[in-house]
Amino acid sequence: MQLPSSLLENAVNEFAKLPGIGKKTALRLVLHLLKQDTDAVQHFGDSITKMRKEIKFCQRCCNIADADICSICANSMRKQDIICVVENIRDVIAIESTQQYNGTYHVLGGVISPLDGIGPDQLTIETLVNRIQKEHTQEVVFALNPNIQGDTTIYYIQKKLQSFPVKVTTIARGISFGGELEYADEMTLARSLQNRLPVESYVAGR
Amino acid sequence: MQLPSSLLENAVNEFAKLPGIGKKTALRLVLHLLKQDTDAVQHFGDSITKMRKEIKFCQRCCNIADADICSICANSMRKQDIICVVENIRDVIAIESTQQYNGTYHVLGGVISPLDGIGPDQLTIETLVNRIQKEHTQEVVFALNPNIQGDTTIYYIQKKLQSFPVKVTTIARGISFGGELEYADEMTLARSLQNRLPVESYVAGR
Repeated sequence: MQLPSSLLENAVNEFAKLPGIGKKTALRLVLHLLKQDTDAVQHFGDSITKMRKEIKFCQRCCNIADADICSICANSMRKQDIICVVENIRDVIAIESTQQYNGTYHVLGGVISPLDGIGPDQLTIETLVNRIQKEHTQEVVFALNPNIQGDTTIYYIQKKLQSFPVKVTTIARGISFGGELEYADEMTLARSLQNRLPVESYVAGR
Repeated sequence: MQLPSSLLENAVNEFAKLPGIGKKTALRLVLHLLKQDTDAVQHFGDSITKMRKEIKFCQRCCNIADADICSICANSMRKQDIICVVENIRDVIAIESTQQYNGTYHVLGGVISPLDGIGPDQLTIETLVNRIQKEHTQEVVFALNPNIQGDTTIYYIQKKLQSFPVKVTTIARGISFGGELEYADEMTLARSLQNRLPVESYVAGR
């Protein structure tokens, strides 16, 4: 694709570096911006560079924050002695939008994945362990994706927590609501049979 | 979607203003940028605001340009007495990538569309007519999308050109290569029967 202007080409190339955006989509987005006011585009650019420069990570839970401590950790209405361990901030947002969880979080920043060169040292596991020890946390709930990397990470952290008097749980695995039994994979179906629930608790949860 | 930081929220909202990008995609893009170097993100922001501020439009053909005259108009190897009239710069890029056209362009900036409130005055039609008169253009080739708005625009401009000694043509309409006759709409099929070609010219064009 030959573009008639190097300024345009630079902007298109920058957009095309974003995940899931190819050259054609990048061009569409850039031409859209070209139609906007200079001020609006300036605001677009500034909000992104400002975000990157000024955003902080909560010193306690490693979540994204505007201050040294994030709004969830700073909220005294939330149970500060329960920690939900998640991979990234998208998972925090997903769990928050259920409005069913009232504790704090800990963002690992990834999961242990030797094939991608990610070991425990690249994650915030040490911060988590120190935090649990210092704060006398009552419960750690793992909410990691159900795959090898997630399970490895749970196993690794759980071993580190063995000497502490903390309850360690994980979110339930099973058949999704709206999912169909016949299309569920064997592993999920087998696990959901093993971990079957009393009907009363199931009905109460709806 | 409740975000834990107002800086993050601003950036996500700005991205979500772009066409075809919803809040979830915007968040994915912003979190991707958050993982990049501050310099890379600064470069991203700058390339966009710089593009918007410094880009020019060719004074002759209204195409996007780095200088007062675009690279196509400034190229003496191209036939300067043929003008291909297109709706927008994306069409210029599409035609250029065929490598089959060696004339100049004129970018209208849209087509006449009363329902969207776009009349002839919002387009660069006057510039085009003045240019044809001044430059003694030999041929005007319309390459507009085959719909009511495109046809109206062709009709309107053609009437303005009646007094000039210029050949006015339009790109051929017909069955696409790879298209199937039985699925073609009646209008396309009827037009391609009316405008049938001698087989020699068809074979030569392949």
